[in-house]
Amino acid sequence: MRVVVTGGAGFLGSHVADVLRASGHDVTVADLQMSPTHRTVVADLIDVSSLTTAFAGAEAVCHLAAVGDVYLAAERPALAAEVNVVGTANVCQAAVASAVRKVVYASTWEVYGQPKYQPLDEEHPCAPDHPYNITKLAGEQIALAYHQLRELDVTALRLGTAYGTRMRPNSVFSIFVDRASRGDTITIQGTGEQARQFTHARDVGRAFDVALTQGAAGRVYNIVADEFITIRKLAELVTSIIPARLEFAPARKADVPTAHVSSARARKELGWEPTVSFDQGLRELVQARAGLTTS
Amino acid sequence: MRVVVTGGAGFLGSHVADVLRASGHDVTVADLQMSPTHRTVVADLIDVSSLTTAFAGAEAVCHLAAVGDVYLAAERPALAAEVNVVGTANVCQAAVASAVRKVVYASTWEVYGQPKYQPLDEEHPCAPDHPYNITKLAGEQIALAYHQLRELDVTALRLGTAYGTRMRPNSVFSIFVDRASRGDTITIQGTGEQARQFTHARDVGRAFDVALTQGAAGRVYNIVADEFITIRKLAELVTSIIPARLEFAPARKADVPTAHVSSARARKELGWEPTVSFDQGLRELVQARAGLTTS
Repeated sequence: MRVVVTGGAGFLGSHVADVLRASGHDVTVADLQMSPTHRTVVADLIDVSSLTTAFAGAEAVCHLAAVGDVYLAAERPALAAEVNVVGTANVCQAAVASAVRKVVYASTWEVYGQPKYQPLDEEHPCAPDHPYNITKLAGEQIALAYHQLRELDVTALRLGTAYGTRMRPNSVFSIFVDRASRGDTITIQGTGEQARQFTHARDVGRAFDVALTQGAAGRVYNIVADEFITIRKLAELVTSIIPARLEFAPARKADVPTAHVSSARARKELGWEPTVSFDQGLRELVQARAGLTTS
Repeated sequence: MRVVVTGGAGFLGSHVADVLRASGHDVTVADLQMSPTHRTVVADLIDVSSLTTAFAGAEAVCHLAAVGDVYLAAERPALAAEVNVVGTANVCQAAVASAVRKVVYASTWEVYGQPKYQPLDEEHPCAPDHPYNITKLAGEQIALAYHQLRELDVTALRLGTAYGTRMRPNSVFSIFVDRASRGDTITIQGTGEQARQFTHARDVGRAFDVALTQGAAGRVYNIVADEFITIRKLAELVTSIIPARLEFAPARKADVPTAHVSSARARKELGWEPTVSFDQGLRELVQARAGLTTS
């Protein structure tokens, strides 16, 4: 399939593009920056004509471009709204104009907000309270509205917190690995007991691959790995690979609480399941980032 | 209180500005167009510096400017997102920069989506599915996030479908009155049994007035009249004032279904209740629009 990956020069988009190409798709990246490894059309979510150009001839679009940095979104809510909401409307508009048949939207498990019950399934109410989650949910809803209003085939994937090689330098993974590599102390904010179902970027890529052909129109799927990893456990795993000291500091404001997310729908309807264990994924990431040979 | 009303040159905003002035506030309108009756600062939601200028010296902002036309929002989702989401983030940013103490946001009862139970109270999950409702909810959530992130005192009012003099020409009220005035047949789309708790624009204005001083920070309130009026009843009331023929036509796509909304929280916590009966409000509107003396 001829697939455009928006944000395909970024961390998660690049893994999605890699997986789609390995799966046999003809991949083009649409991004503000050039991908070092994929054919790229420079496009800006704010400029619908650049998107229409990028989508010419494509059969499907995987839409991952976004303000994905929660700290930047909190600092500049209007920018998050512009990129994540207006930008998604522009992607859908350009997809309609370019006769694209399928759009797969990268949403997030954080759209649910405070859990009313657990595990969180796709029927759980959404009540986001942070500019990142709010704008990602509005983008998801706008994309799904294009299914209703313009008959565009749209599937949304609510992704777990993704990790893997090429992560942003301000991710907790990069920060821990960089500090350990320099021989600095690793600082855990809060008790370190806040846990995440970290989901490997390749597993996310595989979810996009199956959603392209099997994701139902107008439907959302949680794509979240099963393992619960606390921040403390993450730090301990990093220091088991690169020895470093651990210390604790006060919790940051607006940290997302621990919640258990179920991917049962994706397993059942898409046949998706996570394949990269956290231990394996983390060792690969540490090796790549620190330039070390792991034991 | 020195209050800026965004969108104060439009239908609903002009009523809010009138009520606030009558209540003793010092009112300035911020709008793309000049208000014929209120001091106006021309400002654009997309231009945060124009908002900062408009808010200089203000103690409070009532934010009503929006793409409020559901048909326009469906036609141009990116525009709705730009004005209703990015624009609201800009209003909050400018409010923070201008040391405004209070923002009251005009949200809508339509944020709830398909009812899971009725009457709809403020704890009902929100699941909007149309670019208008989606972007109004995202605007509400962004504004409330400013309370969390920047300590801006924000209250949101989820308004019933408002009516009154000076309505847009494409509102069902204006269309019915205009057709009857010209001696044309009034066409009801669908069965005419879809009902709304039409809420008079002056009652909405009174809700903003009380919310300015008594609306809790970070809290939302339904502001919806009690009476249920079907479209058929509306048409019959119009033709009882201006005789005209009625006919029925197929339903429009994406019509919002009937739902019962409770304003119990606003009654209890704000002391707000509707005061304009539908019969009174409609006669006033018909008289003003058709230039008739009603019996």
